[in-house]
Amino acid sequence: MSLFGFAFKPRRARTAQTARDRLQLLLAHERLGSSSAPDFLPQLQNDLLEVIRKYVAVDDDGVEIVMQREDAMSSLEINIELPSESAPKGAAG
Amino acid sequence: MSLFGFAFKPRRARTAQTARDRLQLLLAHERLGSSSAPDFLPQLQNDLLEVIRKYVAVDDDGVEIVMQREDAMSSLEINIELPSESAPKGAAG
Repeated sequence: MSLFGFAFKPRRARTAQTARDRLQLLLAHERLGSSSAPDFLPQLQNDLLEVIRKYVAVDDDGVEIVMQREDAMSSLEINIELPSESAPKGAAG
Repeated sequence: MSLFGFAFKPRRARTAQTARDRLQLLLAHERLGSSSAPDFLPQLQNDLLEVIRKYVAVDDDGVEIVMQREDAMSSLEINIELPSESAPKGAAG
C-alpha cells in the first residue's frame, strides 16, 4: 500500500552503482491564501539532516536536496543514499 | 509541478474546520534485500517533531502520525495542522 502516491523515484544510474539503502524525506508546507507565513523550509533542512545523522551515517556526497516554491505550497525533498554496510547508530541523546 | 506524485491528501473534514496551514512530512527508508538494517523510523519520529517545533507552534492535537512497514520499505508520515495565525518562530539555536 502506498502513501497517497508517495513513491521513490527509480534508482538513478550512478558512476559506482553500489548497494545502498535509501532514505527519502519529503516535507511540504501548504499555506492558505490568507496566510502570510514565511517560508521556513530552507532553515529546517539543515536541522532535519542533523537529526537523521543521529541515526545513520550520512555522507555529504550522498545527499541530494530539492526545494520548490509555489504560491501556496513550499516543498523540500531530501534524498540520502546510505551505505548498506553502515548499521544505524543508536539514538544519540 | 508536483514532486513525483507527492501530493497532499484532500483536507479532511474536521469538527472545527478552521483555516490552517499544513505541514506534511513523509519519510521513507528503502532497505536493500541484503540489508539487515533495523527500522529506526519510530525513534526518528519524535526528533523530527522536536525540530519542527523549533520553527512553528505545533499542538499535539494537530499532529497525525502514520507508520507503515513492508519488507523492504518503512515509511513515516507526519501531518501537522498549523494555526494560520501562528507566525513561524525564528530558528532557535
